Amino acid sequence: MKISVLTVSIAGLMLSMLMVNKVSLAATGLTQTQTETLQTLKQQALQDDLSYQLIESLTTEVGARLVGSEGEKRSVQWAVDKMKSLGFDKVWTEESEAQLWQRGDMRAQISSPFPHSVAALALGNSVGTNGKTLKAEVVEFADLAALKAASEDELEGKIAFISYKMERHKDGHGYGKAVGARVVGASEAAKKGAVAFIMRSVGTDSNKFAHTGVSRYTEGVKKIPAVAISNPDADLLQNALKRGKPVTFSLTTNASGPTGETTTIANVIGEVTGSKMPEQLVTLGAHLDSWDVGTGAIDDGIGVGITMAAGHYIATLKQRPARTLRVILFAAEEVGLLGAKDYVKQHKDEMSQHVIGAEWDFGNGKIYELEPGINPDALPAMSAFAKELASLGVTMADTNTAKGQSDMSALGEAGQPAVNFNPDGSDYFDFHHTRNDTLDKVDQEALKTNTAIYTMFAFFATSTPTEFRHSPSTNNSDSQ
Amino acid sequence: MKISVLTVSIAGLMLSMLMVNKVSLAATGLTQTQTETLQTLKQQALQDDLSYQLIESLTTEVGARLVGSEGEKRSVQWAVDKMKSLGFDKVWTEESEAQLWQRGDMRAQISSPFPHSVAALALGNSVGTNGKTLKAEVVEFADLAALKAASEDELEGKIAFISYKMERHKDGHGYGKAVGARVVGASEAAKKGAVAFIMRSVGTDSNKFAHTGVSRYTEGVKKIPAVAISNPDADLLQNALKRGKPVTFSLTTNASGPTGETTTIANVIGEVTGSKMPEQLVTLGAHLDSWDVGTGAIDDGIGVGITMAAGHYIATLKQRPARTLRVILFAAEEVGLLGAKDYVKQHKDEMSQHVIGAEWDFGNGKIYELEPGINPDALPAMSAFAKELASLGVTMADTNTAKGQSDMSALGEAGQPAVNFNPDGSDYFDFHHTRNDTLDKVDQEALKTNTAIYTMFAFFATSTPTEFRHSPSTNNSDSQ
Repeated sequence: MKISVLTVSIAGLMLSMLMVNKVSLAATGLTQTQTETLQTLKQQALQDDLSYQLIESLTTEVGARLVGSEGEKRSVQWAVDKMKSLGFDKVWTEESEAQLWQRGDMRAQISSPFPHSVAALALGNSVGTNGKTLKAEVVEFADLAALKAASEDELEGKIAFISYKMERHKDGHGYGKAVGARVVGASEAAKKGAVAFIMRSVGTDSNKFAHTGVSRYTEGVKKIPAVAISNPDADLLQNALKRGKPVTFSLTTNASGPTGETTTIANVIGEVTGSKMPEQLVTLGAHLDSWDVGTGAIDDGIGVGITMAAGHYIATLKQRPARTLRVILFAAEEVGLLGAKDYVKQHKDEMSQHVIGAEWDFGNGKIYELEPGINPDALPAMSAFAKELASLGVTMADTNTAKGQSDMSALGEAGQPAVNFNPDGSDYFDFHHTRNDTLDKVDQEALKTNTAIYTMFAFFATSTPTEFRHSPSTNNSDSQ
Repeated sequence: MKISVLTVSIAGLMLSMLMVNKVSLAATGLTQTQTETLQTLKQQALQDDLSYQLIESLTTEVGARLVGSEGEKRSVQWAVDKMKSLGFDKVWTEESEAQLWQRGDMRAQISSPFPHSVAALALGNSVGTNGKTLKAEVVEFADLAALKAASEDELEGKIAFISYKMERHKDGHGYGKAVGARVVGASEAAKKGAVAFIMRSVGTDSNKFAHTGVSRYTEGVKKIPAVAISNPDADLLQNALKRGKPVTFSLTTNASGPTGETTTIANVIGEVTGSKMPEQLVTLGAHLDSWDVGTGAIDDGIGVGITMAAGHYIATLKQRPARTLRVILFAAEEVGLLGAKDYVKQHKDEMSQHVIGAEWDFGNGKIYELEPGINPDALPAMSAFAKELASLGVTMADTNTAKGQSDMSALGEAGQPAVNFNPDGSDYFDFHHTRNDTLDKVDQEALKTNTAIYTMFAFFATSTPTEFRHSPSTNNSDSQ
């Protein structure tokens, strides 16, 4: 008796599942054949290691790709060659100009009362000390707000030190709370008379090396050196300061500061041309530049690998999807989304044909969430697609506010709908902007899963007739 | 009925436990009062943070302590002052001489076909390139044996590269398999005509910085630069080599090599004088010197903290134990146990009065094993003592072959019985000889437990009448 009930229940359950599945598939707007292709692509990406091979190639054959460096120039040629060999229909570059900044050498020390060499990095845009050694007493502030609250002239002739420690969170929101000091700390310190600004690195690791990243000078305020020191060195400096006697710090840096000199940057773009609505663009983005201290494997070699691999898988299907897939490897993201902003300017007339986009620029973790930012009418289709990702551990967020990560935020502001694929970013800021951003840090299993997700998204978004934009995508003006 | 049986069983069990405990205590040779003191010391050490405060002070107020450096000189004064303030009865230094070696600057690069800057460190004793840049093709060897097996002149004008990767093990035995290349690799490469020797760092981490450590030149063989590169850089070099085209490497180092110049080194010794048999010496050892790239918190600030704290706890008891406790902070361990070897020479007439000794020079992990190397007649007493450590997670090994760790091995060779306290060393070689050897890496909970264990051992060994030596300890000749 019991067994019979169970049998009936299982049969009923299987029937329900089949029905739910059928309903889901219908909602995606994909045909049965397309749905099968989606599954085939998933299996292909999960079994293949193309994205890893691309990252290996980029980090080995090119390496660090700081804006203005030889590595950056070589990366552009590398990307063009790779995209062509991967079967993209069109591959081209779009050039513009960026400010040149050069790091130069750096030496930093706690000078007295206890001398220690300190692992430090000039922040992007920082001026140097013109080959001279700058030495002054350190004044500690708990965070940027405390520095801003310091009285006028409190720092006359001194070095301001922000000791705030970034918090570790799955979604990386600790970064937002920490990064303000990096961006404006130097000018805030200079306003109070400081001769240099040093800060605990924006990072969650405990390695004795610093995290670099961009900083900005406020116009009209004296430009003073802006330097990040490693987490263990920040501990050491705090421990020295705790003893209540003056602590002096010295630094010598040849960082160039903003010289006015420019350098050519280039977005690299590859397309798999749509078979029915080629003017409608689905974009996948990542950035090709990196900081100079590692090989940019995580930030953003992974994004380069995932998006190029997804493009390849779509390009090698027997039939081109309806819409065009455009993979954009942005230039100069690290120094302020410059390539993305240039892209929006150069493509302003076709921004309204950008149907939807997704960026990968958040490291190593497995994706756990699909967060949409689309026309509400398209949510059932996206939700049905998200169900196809459930077996890969992805659920859909119940918000609809995504504007696009990183570079894609510039396109999002210009009206492109977005999907954010959110990974576990708990360890991202251990490696971010450090010498430890190297190939061995890539989680190859997570990479396969994430590549599968991006490939499936690319196929779904280029194949479904679903309208993700708030306004029709054939309209050439951006109505958002 | 059942309940009655259970009651009787529990009562019987408790009686048995009490009896076992009584027998155990008797076997340690300690009186009831001494056994209570042992428990008091355990609780004191577990609740206190003296050993951590000592490490914090050493790493903050002194820092790196490379033989011949200012830091090393200051560490000697620091240790003398601290021991005096901690209540040791006698504190003194014993000086000798060591070869001076200076690191100088270093730059290393993969030059072609793909240029990359490489994180590298000259190995201790390495010669430099005299300010010139040495550039040559790289030849990879899987390990030291493969290098030794290379044909004569195979490396003429080339750079030998050993890519062997150290294995991670709880007991650290991967180090023994990897370190040979560091010690003799340069001379083995020079025998085949190499102009420089580079190797994957001896370490289990994946950080982009190198592990330093001592190397030795074979007499009569040309001295060539000996350099360790970081694990990620070794991966990168291997990936570049895999492509089958010549890979060139360049390095510039101002390492001094062995100059013949010497520097004064000093063991720092503190005693808590025995009340009944002061001539019988129980020793606790650690080394005061460190490499120059971190602050020597783990290697061997922890040993300094544990042994000094144990000495303090014994020194502040109401009554001095029977034997003398001697805490020895050895000089120049990192460059070949020089302080320990000097100690044995300088104390040769009293080596036979060294009853037993223990070193701490294996990092951060919790102790899980007491491994004796003593007179077999003393094993029951040691076993009874080990039972007192059971609640701290320690069991006694069933071997009796310990000769003493690190510095203590020199005293062990001179006949001093030993106890090795073996910790979980799984992560030790992540930090070992790197810039990451800093205070934040210290596991404060494990440190408390380990300090308790060393304190209890110090009290037990100075208080028990047990004879740990194979020959009577009042005999002035070393009979082993």
